Amino acid sequence: MKASTLARGRLADGRSIAYYGDYGSAPARVTADRRAIEALPATTRLVRDPLTDDWVVMAPGRRARVPAGGCPLCPTTASAASEIPASRFDVAVFDNRFPALPAPGQCEVIVYSSDHDQSLARLPLRRMRTVVGAWIDRTEQLSRRPGVAQVVCFENRGAQIGATLTHPHGQVYAYPFVPGRIDRMHATAQRRRTAGRPCVGCERATPAGSALQVTATDGWVALVPECARLPWEVHVLPRRHVSDLRDLDDAEVGELAVIYRRVLAALECVLPEPLPYMALWVQSPTGDADAVVHLHAQLFSDRFAVGAKKHLAAGELGSGAWVSEVDPAATAAYLRAAAEIRPTGAGGVLLCG
Amino acid sequence: MKASTLARGRLADGRSIAYYGDYGSAPARVTADRRAIEALPATTRLVRDPLTDDWVVMAPGRRARVPAGGCPLCPTTASAASEIPASRFDVAVFDNRFPALPAPGQCEVIVYSSDHDQSLARLPLRRMRTVVGAWIDRTEQLSRRPGVAQVVCFENRGAQIGATLTHPHGQVYAYPFVPGRIDRMHATAQRRRTAGRPCVGCERATPAGSALQVTATDGWVALVPECARLPWEVHVLPRRHVSDLRDLDDAEVGELAVIYRRVLAALECVLPEPLPYMALWVQSPTGDADAVVHLHAQLFSDRFAVGAKKHLAAGELGSGAWVSEVDPAATAAYLRAAAEIRPTGAGGVLLCG
Repeated sequence: MKASTLARGRLADGRSIAYYGDYGSAPARVTADRRAIEALPATTRLVRDPLTDDWVVMAPGRRARVPAGGCPLCPTTASAASEIPASRFDVAVFDNRFPALPAPGQCEVIVYSSDHDQSLARLPLRRMRTVVGAWIDRTEQLSRRPGVAQVVCFENRGAQIGATLTHPHGQVYAYPFVPGRIDRMHATAQRRRTAGRPCVGCERATPAGSALQVTATDGWVALVPECARLPWEVHVLPRRHVSDLRDLDDAEVGELAVIYRRVLAALECVLPEPLPYMALWVQSPTGDADAVVHLHAQLFSDRFAVGAKKHLAAGELGSGAWVSEVDPAATAAYLRAAAEIRPTGAGGVLLCG
Repeated sequence: MKASTLARGRLADGRSIAYYGDYGSAPARVTADRRAIEALPATTRLVRDPLTDDWVVMAPGRRARVPAGGCPLCPTTASAASEIPASRFDVAVFDNRFPALPAPGQCEVIVYSSDHDQSLARLPLRRMRTVVGAWIDRTEQLSRRPGVAQVVCFENRGAQIGATLTHPHGQVYAYPFVPGRIDRMHATAQRRRTAGRPCVGCERATPAGSALQVTATDGWVALVPECARLPWEVHVLPRRHVSDLRDLDDAEVGELAVIYRRVLAALECVLPEPLPYMALWVQSPTGDADAVVHLHAQLFSDRFAVGAKKHLAAGELGSGAWVSEVDPAATAAYLRAAAEIRPTGAGGVLLCG
């Protein structure tokens, strides 16, 4: 399942850019990147924490990266050149000018809209479908590259949690190692399979209704995990045991756009102002033929309420034992109610907020 | 090595309290706890995250725990009863009225001073020595209890990172499980030993000077780890391979008070206002006879500068791969300079800030 239109190009400093188009939409109006910019030297390196064996990306130069001038994710205009040399586009994906990962890692930015003031939750369903197609295509492209161990599509949304750009966008990281928490999910799933225990995702996604379920379709379930660590936490998973975004069938891809957008819309509605949130896709490491990990998206926010956040303290950051103030069933009930407020179809206007 | 004076008592609802006295100090002036308070029902439970096998403490009632009235950690006066029924004390340790851990876990509060406006960094050296003695005694007492798997002495300091009380205090948790990150440190140290590789702590604490060293004594080293994840991060470790606070010899205990206080004082001085910080002791799980973990304190802060913090995003919280904007050698150089500004002796007044 690929996005319906696709164009590729190069930015002035040699970085790649690709455009994905909505079904039935006009192609992106692409121009040449006429900026005088040069490739930046790599400044990040990987250091293994000898106490935990986790890799840490040391990127001391990254704090100075906030770009001057206009939004770098808006379309290029006659008066302002952005990172996207196109006057019209639906979804654009390009290499981050300030990558966190050293080669052979890869850091891409995925821009969800040319409209600076939109959010993924408010974009029309067909755009969400294009974004899903782009996630699948980026997983396909990046998994093939030598030295890539794990592809993660993710989004950090909201200035309150440190997102430096407000233009609607996510990111795709192709890690040259398997990140620690995903590695542990993989190892745990492998241990369960070896011990003959059922897959956690398959168990959670069984059709029986649950107090923790937020919403569902024929092929997908969205739920609050029973061990939710953060004030709002939702997992979106296919009912079928699939380990990789590329293994979803056409019906699953179509339904994913529906349920993912519904969950985002619920998160936008649940407090008096849109929740800042983080989201990521957990899929198999590229080198894994066993497909033990049950594909799922994790969406979460550290805000209990406007102005009240979950602080991570010595217990969480040092010992690694989380104390959660969450009542998962109550969270699920709030989100179920919010998910009933459906976005309208093509216009993408929410009925709440 | 125990603290020099010690008294024990019970609070009105049956919880334990213990008093530790500075060397040469008058004993605590203890009274009966005359409050009309009853034991609270346990409201927390442990849930194992089936995706990672980590335990999560589910404590949905804890957000409402901020006590009304005066500071609960100040001495009791004729007009105000606090959690500490004494009109004078040096260090007091009592069971938390709102424990995060269910039985057989235990949550204690360790109050460093009767003076509400002090901080551990500014207290005199003999008080720091009493606190070290209390850490050792609490480790001893709690390690003996059935069902306790790991004792962690820690401190969260500063309202900015969510500490609900400003009165100088730390905490001691006796976990009924080994917290995930400490468990991984233990497993990693065990793997290294099995493979015949040297202990990380023993390597780091070798006498040779390093650009990452902050300060040192004959028996201890304070350093910034080469993989520091947070803006300020210091490890304090003994040169000798010791796995448990109880195994320190008299000279090591005395020097620990000196170097720990020096590091805290450096952290207080490094920005124009005192850094909020977190600190914890990593020692062996109680059931570990192999002593593979090299005892050390980890102290860290998420502030780059006043008003600028490290945000944890989807990469850190979801994937578990940290992107660190830290330059460890530069951090160590700042802290070395700050550590030169010594607190004066008995008065405990800092020369900076």
